[in-house]
Amino acid sequence: MAYVQRLTVRFNDVDFARIVYYPRLFAYCHAVFEDFFAAEAGIPYADVLQKRGIGFPVVGAKADFKSPLRFGDVCRVVMEVIHLGKRSLGCRYRLYLGESERLCAEIEVTSAVVSMKDLSPVELPADFRALLEKHRGS
Amino acid sequence: MAYVQRLTVRFNDVDFARIVYYPRLFAYCHAVFEDFFAAEAGIPYADVLQKRGIGFPVVGAKADFKSPLRFGDVCRVVMEVIHLGKRSLGCRYRLYLGESERLCAEIEVTSAVVSMKDLSPVELPADFRALLEKHRGS
Amino acid sequence: MAYVQRLTVRFNDVDFARIVYYPRLFAYCHAVFEDFFAAEAGIPYADVLQKRGIGFPVVGAKADFKSPLRFGDVCRVVMEVIHLGKRSLGCRYRLYLGESERLCAEIEVTSAVVSMKDLSPVELPADFRALLEKHRGS
Amino acid sequence: MAYVQRLTVRFNDVDFARIVYYPRLFAYCHAVFEDFFAAEAGIPYADVLQKRGIGFPVVGAKADFKSPLRFGDVCRVVMEVIHLGKRSLGCRYRLYLGESERLCAEIEVTSAVVSMKDLSPVELPADFRALLEKHRGS
Repeated sequence: MAYVQRLTVRFNDVDFARIVYYPRLFAYCHAVFEDFFAAEAGIPYADVLQKRGIGFPVVGAKADFKSPLRFGDVCRVVMEVIHLGKRSLGCRYRLYLGESERLCAEIEVTSAVVSMKDLSPVELPADFRALLEKHRGS
Repeated sequence: MAYVQRLTVRFNDVDFARIVYYPRLFAYCHAVFEDFFAAEAGIPYADVLQKRGIGFPVVGAKADFKSPLRFGDVCRVVMEVIHLGKRSLGCRYRLYLGESERLCAEIEVTSAVVSMKDLSPVELPADFRALLEKHRGS
Repeated sequence: MAYVQRLTVRFNDVDFARIVYYPRLFAYCHAVFEDFFAAEAGIPYADVLQKRGIGFPVVGAKADFKSPLRFGDVCRVVMEVIHLGKRSLGCRYRLYLGESERLCAEIEVTSAVVSMKDLSPVELPADFRALLEKHRGS
Repeated sequence: MAYVQRLTVRFNDVDFARIVYYPRLFAYCHAVFEDFFAAEAGIPYADVLQKRGIGFPVVGAKADFKSPLRFGDVCRVVMEVIHLGKRSLGCRYRLYLGESERLCAEIEVTSAVVSMKDLSPVELPADFRALLEKHRGS
């Protein structure tokens, strides 16, 4: 079951070409990943890092940008977990224009699971694994 | 022959984990692409878009992040053209730590070539093609 | 009557010192100003600029930063209109930590009212004036 | 004697109105402040914070934005120290269009001087004071 969140393209998210500056779309995905923890597990992302001591540095990313997003557009982000390793995690984000089926971007992000103490790899805690498992996509 | 440029990681390029926020690394690549035109062809990037009317919206990106960059690090970006289509362009950016051979990130970016009037595809002008051809990587 | 909106400090809003990078706080205020129009007048900010053709470029700003905001903090922004000229507008933003009375920042922003066609000054339309008048602070 | 540095307005520094998003201008000033230490004292700003353990969190800012900067413009930043307290520092930044006398923005930034260990106030070290004294403006 995918996790869905909507963002509105802000005044300063666009570049000179008046479409969303593409690195911003990765930031959109990160924002959705942050909010996912509060929304689905009741634990703010800041607590994941600071109280639980777990971080998810990105080790790989892959993106297709199919259709531009513009100032004021609602971006519907559909997030699914596509990989759950012992110490790694893969998510796919599909970014749609508003409530339509127009796919604007498809972004896959692979993260390591690390200790926030020293960024060394650690095993994904069982409760986070269970949470993420529930949001598996195909 | 690769195009090489150095950037210093700024105070605000890092995130809470005190490593460069990964979307910023795509912005680094974009900055290098912008500066490439002024440095290698003597035409500021703003003129490419505004006087020549040509733009390069990103249609795909792929990245491996191998080693974090931190505040104050010099990031040596080595840019090579890896694809030159009729209406598309692929660049590879290797981001090294300072003058060392430590590869921090490898990023490939594919762009369309469009008219800035309406973002419709156009052919890459011959002078830009010749310029980019000179910076072909393997 | 003040307009109130809450933002959560994101992973990448902080700098190396792990407090919100101060230019971001101006961006917070801008985001609140954008959302104000949709929330209070039912007109998305993008429509203010694109359909109504009115823009609000900032001509002055003044800020006191009293207490840092950190990753995960909820920032409660209280916005009030403090100046309503013929072709200008002043807003004050007080940024509090969560639901507490700890004032983290007080920011005043003065904007011109312009036509989006050429950024030339225009009179504030009557309906926007009435809307803003309702949110007058002392 | 003022410290002068030039920045070029990047593709993504502008907002939907195609002028520099005003919070970015504060970031320009911060970038100049960072580079000032390496350029004038031979100590990279990251070392000021990490080796010397001194930070300069901003406690106040005041800005007049007089004329917009656009994509591709060279922004000539003229920085002067206008206040040197025991535990505080004030700088004025004048942002000009290219080599012209067109003043685009005038920004004053007041910083505390703190220990990076706990952000508590400390006295400005004598060598930094001497350096800053040399760049006093009226």
